[in-house]
Amino acid sequence: MELEFLGTGAGVPAKSRNVTSIALKLLDELNEVWLFDVGEATQHQILSTTIKPRKITKIFLTHLHGDHLFGLPGLLSSRSFQGGDGPLTIYGPPKVEKFVKTALAVSDTHLGYKINYVPVTESGLVFEDHGFKVTCEKLEHRVPSFGYRVEEKPRAGELLVDKLKAYHIKSGPIYGKLKRGEEVTLEDGTVLDGKDFLGPDHPGRVVSIFGDTRKTPQSVVLAQDADVMVHESTFGKAEGKLAYDYYHSTNIQAANIAKQASAKRLLLTHISARYNGNYSYELEKEAKKVFKNTKVVKDFDIIDVPMKR
Amino acid sequence: MELEFLGTGAGVPAKSRNVTSIALKLLDELNEVWLFDVGEATQHQILSTTIKPRKITKIFLTHLHGDHLFGLPGLLSSRSFQGGDGPLTIYGPPKVEKFVKTALAVSDTHLGYKINYVPVTESGLVFEDHGFKVTCEKLEHRVPSFGYRVEEKPRAGELLVDKLKAYHIKSGPIYGKLKRGEEVTLEDGTVLDGKDFLGPDHPGRVVSIFGDTRKTPQSVVLAQDADVMVHESTFGKAEGKLAYDYYHSTNIQAANIAKQASAKRLLLTHISARYNGNYSYELEKEAKKVFKNTKVVKDFDIIDVPMKR
Repeated sequence: MELEFLGTGAGVPAKSRNVTSIALKLLDELNEVWLFDVGEATQHQILSTTIKPRKITKIFLTHLHGDHLFGLPGLLSSRSFQGGDGPLTIYGPPKVEKFVKTALAVSDTHLGYKINYVPVTESGLVFEDHGFKVTCEKLEHRVPSFGYRVEEKPRAGELLVDKLKAYHIKSGPIYGKLKRGEEVTLEDGTVLDGKDFLGPDHPGRVVSIFGDTRKTPQSVVLAQDADVMVHESTFGKAEGKLAYDYYHSTNIQAANIAKQASAKRLLLTHISARYNGNYSYELEKEAKKVFKNTKVVKDFDIIDVPMKR
Repeated sequence: MELEFLGTGAGVPAKSRNVTSIALKLLDELNEVWLFDVGEATQHQILSTTIKPRKITKIFLTHLHGDHLFGLPGLLSSRSFQGGDGPLTIYGPPKVEKFVKTALAVSDTHLGYKINYVPVTESGLVFEDHGFKVTCEKLEHRVPSFGYRVEEKPRAGELLVDKLKAYHIKSGPIYGKLKRGEEVTLEDGTVLDGKDFLGPDHPGRVVSIFGDTRKTPQSVVLAQDADVMVHESTFGKAEGKLAYDYYHSTNIQAANIAKQASAKRLLLTHISARYNGNYSYELEKEAKKVFKNTKVVKDFDIIDVPMKR
């Protein structure tokens, strides 16, 4: 599980930071990539990564401002052009469907795959299967804006190979069954329960990805005990009033939420062009005084979210 | 008058060539920039040029395929964000209006300027004022596609300063009037006619910019005697069947049109990603055998269209 930042700027693209998009790479877990927001030229950024558009199976939109949205039609088209034929689900405020359908119709674009639209209108469950649960919280922005909390379910522990050695089993199908926690009857009649041969479960990881927002109580719910929390920091410490007026946050507000929520790590993104070059390190330095494990991310940063023991 | 190529690729963006956009820089003539097509990330490309979005006053869409269109909402938004407040006119197939209005409404974008939409549905006059005339020809593509012919009207010749010296006139308002071809009465009662003090008119320049198309008779009309003709070359000489099947052209077809139309210079763009690196020079070399003054352009090439005498 890795996060790759495809765009870390705010509002308009700059040479150093593109507008927002974040990839949650679940290659080991699902062989899938989930995208959060698709600012213009996200597909261009992807050209400089190892991400294959056809592996993108879910796209979550935090909100529909242009700097989070306008790259969507191009990405969808190129995914098809490059041979993506598996279905794709788009989660987000309902008008995204109208936007995508209009763009595809006007441009006479015919995708080689189906898009499912899941409208997101209030806090709650967004998606759940055997491996992951995604919930969202409504945040506070000029337009409806959401944060998504991706919770991995506990993963089975490793097979205790040493313990199995006593039974002289060759690696193969029996190992597979035991690894899945199933019962196996050996040739001599011995019954083995997979659960007895597995190490402890790995607790699931939690990643919380915020849309643009003012500081709000829902933020703490979203980030509670998160392993990684990705929050906007459009403004610096001194610009609290600007942040409030424009429905955004400062680095210090984000750090305070991380602290209140007992998050483990804070990644700051959506950095205004006014904090170019070394100024962005100042944002990080300031925030670290409140929440030590803070990093201001740049375009193409890859952040590993390691398996828990 | 200069052409600056902001995107010279076909279909999908590549690292080396972005999708289509061409700027006609009329800075000396009008202090304006006109854009032809706005593929995704055109505004990003502009960041690497000296073009100021607020100087873009007219946008011509050749057709509405995504690789010529999807950069439009972002460019319009950033033009406003960066202080552009003068009106802007969009010429193109009528559905562009629906696309732009939907994108702006869904993203809750409020521009600080007015957009005029001029629907283009058939060959004919698109725009005319005292300095320029723009006509279009309907081409042959999978969707309605047009080429635009920009004709500059003849420009007044230079003021013949040496000839004026005999009258001992100080440079200043009188010079200005004479330069505009007006009559002036001097203090001693002498009447001078500006027309007698101007060198010969500069003939207007003609630039023809094609949308995606198969070879068609209208192409020759569009390019007739053009000083610069910008034509797609999605495919090379050997791929005539592919070009026909996909409603595109080869380099040789474009060169033949340039020859038939007695154009002065041919610029080939919309180059498929299959012709990367040196292969694009092959396209140029082949085309030169048919029409010598041919160039395959790259992103950020600036082509001067010099004043005629």
